Amino acid sequence: MRIGVDLGGTNIAVGLVEEDGKIIATGSRPTKPERGYEAIARDIAELSFELLQRMGISVKDVKSMGIGVPGVADNEKGIVIRAVNLFWTKVPLAKEIRKYIDLPIYMENDANVAALAEATFGAGRGSKSSVTITLGTGVGSGFILDGKIYSGAHHFAPEIGHMVIGDNGIRCNCGKIGCFETYASATALIREGKKAAKRNPNTLILKFANGDIEGITAKNVIDAAKQYDEEALKIFEEYVKYLAVGIVNIINLFDPEVIILGGGVANAGDFLLKPLKKEVAENILFKELPYADIRKAELGNDAGIIGAAILS
Amino acid sequence: MRIGVDLGGTNIAVGLVEEDGKIIATGSRPTKPERGYEAIARDIAELSFELLQRMGISVKDVKSMGIGVPGVADNEKGIVIRAVNLFWTKVPLAKEIRKYIDLPIYMENDANVAALAEATFGAGRGSKSSVTITLGTGVGSGFILDGKIYSGAHHFAPEIGHMVIGDNGIRCNCGKIGCFETYASATALIREGKKAAKRNPNTLILKFANGDIEGITAKNVIDAAKQYDEEALKIFEEYVKYLAVGIVNIINLFDPEVIILGGGVANAGDFLLKPLKKEVAENILFKELPYADIRKAELGNDAGIIGAAILS
Repeated sequence: MRIGVDLGGTNIAVGLVEEDGKIIATGSRPTKPERGYEAIARDIAELSFELLQRMGISVKDVKSMGIGVPGVADNEKGIVIRAVNLFWTKVPLAKEIRKYIDLPIYMENDANVAALAEATFGAGRGSKSSVTITLGTGVGSGFILDGKIYSGAHHFAPEIGHMVIGDNGIRCNCGKIGCFETYASATALIREGKKAAKRNPNTLILKFANGDIEGITAKNVIDAAKQYDEEALKIFEEYVKYLAVGIVNIINLFDPEVIILGGGVANAGDFLLKPLKKEVAENILFKELPYADIRKAELGNDAGIIGAAILS
Repeated sequence: MRIGVDLGGTNIAVGLVEEDGKIIATGSRPTKPERGYEAIARDIAELSFELLQRMGISVKDVKSMGIGVPGVADNEKGIVIRAVNLFWTKVPLAKEIRKYIDLPIYMENDANVAALAEATFGAGRGSKSSVTITLGTGVGSGFILDGKIYSGAHHFAPEIGHMVIGDNGIRCNCGKIGCFETYASATALIREGKKAAKRNPNTLILKFANGDIEGITAKNVIDAAKQYDEEALKIFEEYVKYLAVGIVNIINLFDPEVIILGGGVANAGDFLLKPLKKEVAENILFKELPYADIRKAELGNDAGIIGAAILS
């Protein structure tokens, strides 16, 4: 038995995870980052004890606790180096939690943790190397090599979302222009969907959002594209084109065995994967050589807890 | 003692390399790829025996032979999967050479091999991870992790030169538009230098090329920039800007301990490194965290033979 913690800016989610990756119990509390890290560490310990008690499991039967953090973590030192949403810089989180619970504590960036879960129990199981790309509000990513997270010399790799791939003129939160995230996130679909709805109020995008431009979602755009709405199709085709540019870059750079797509946009399934694979095939460098298989993520939101639990 | 072979489209260069990376003897012959791989394999063996004889060394005192190939290699199988300039597809090079010389034979892509040499004996010695980027006719690259070449699941990583970073409208040899190579190679400087000389025949670029537009070199452009020639400065500033875009991408993706710049353009030394480091610092994602140190390569052309010799 292991404990996995998915520490987000909004919620702390804790789960008990069996050796085969199965979650047998979960609990959560609001993060309320303004409380400071000591209170959050105590909550993580308390939630863990609650789950163990509920399931009748002794802490002695738990091997370790792992935490996915929304930022940069130093697993060896047990320190969260930087987590913008939590207002944390160099927080000794492992030491603080160990005041309450005597377990080995591991921690890694949450996108890396989700990638580890997919590589181990999800769409990448059995592979020697995989890159998981999460197409959500931003673009998260993790690179798993020989069953281990690769996070680089300063613990921030691989920030695929901030790879510059073009000159779209859109300034990313990070300050740069042309980041992959500004092309390939759900936010990019929403941004272009809103523009289209302003340009053409007859688009299905707006209808699916019940006429509320500000309420347009990525799913609205995708659903409208599925119904052959012209505005939505144009947006979706551009989206796929630049998603492919980024994925071809990743294939050329990392040459992983598998590329796994997660996050809300990946729920479009084959409607996304089919044209994406075609676009990648047309732009791949070595057309005669095998390259990464592109797959949909399998674990959904559970990846955060499962991946954290199997950290080492 | 080990044998290192730098197999290029023009020349086969062979060297005897000591354990400390010192080359004690070299020899070369023209590749003449039209002869086919059997003749080239025999030449590699013959050159090796010539060097051993010249130095009075027995083949029994040689530990291994390593070969840097201008293409994609499968080191485990001893096969060159693809080498466009040699017209090779799935060539069993190791087996062919072993007909003449009884040694373990290793092979890797030539850019990866040069990166291994720099990581082991050059600008990256002592580091756990480094990316070497060669700014030459194209842009070559190698990623060394824990003293080993990382070449990915299908042996073609990391093709940094073909990472798309913008929409410059320039079609790369690979067929795509906006590859890093079209911004950051010596060829890019030459291309822009020629354009400038046509636009403005008074530029020092043209003077340094003795008035011959077709003869303009990357060095002409850099030398003119050093003399504050306006055209050359404009080209060089753009060059540095996009070289930084690519390097920041690599830092964000691989987060290596060291980035090493080789190739002809890197000979500009601090004239290149100083503005480059400034541009990288301004565009780095985590401005408050440490990141890769950027250094000039140290081994020059020897990197090919040295890196090949230490393959395993």
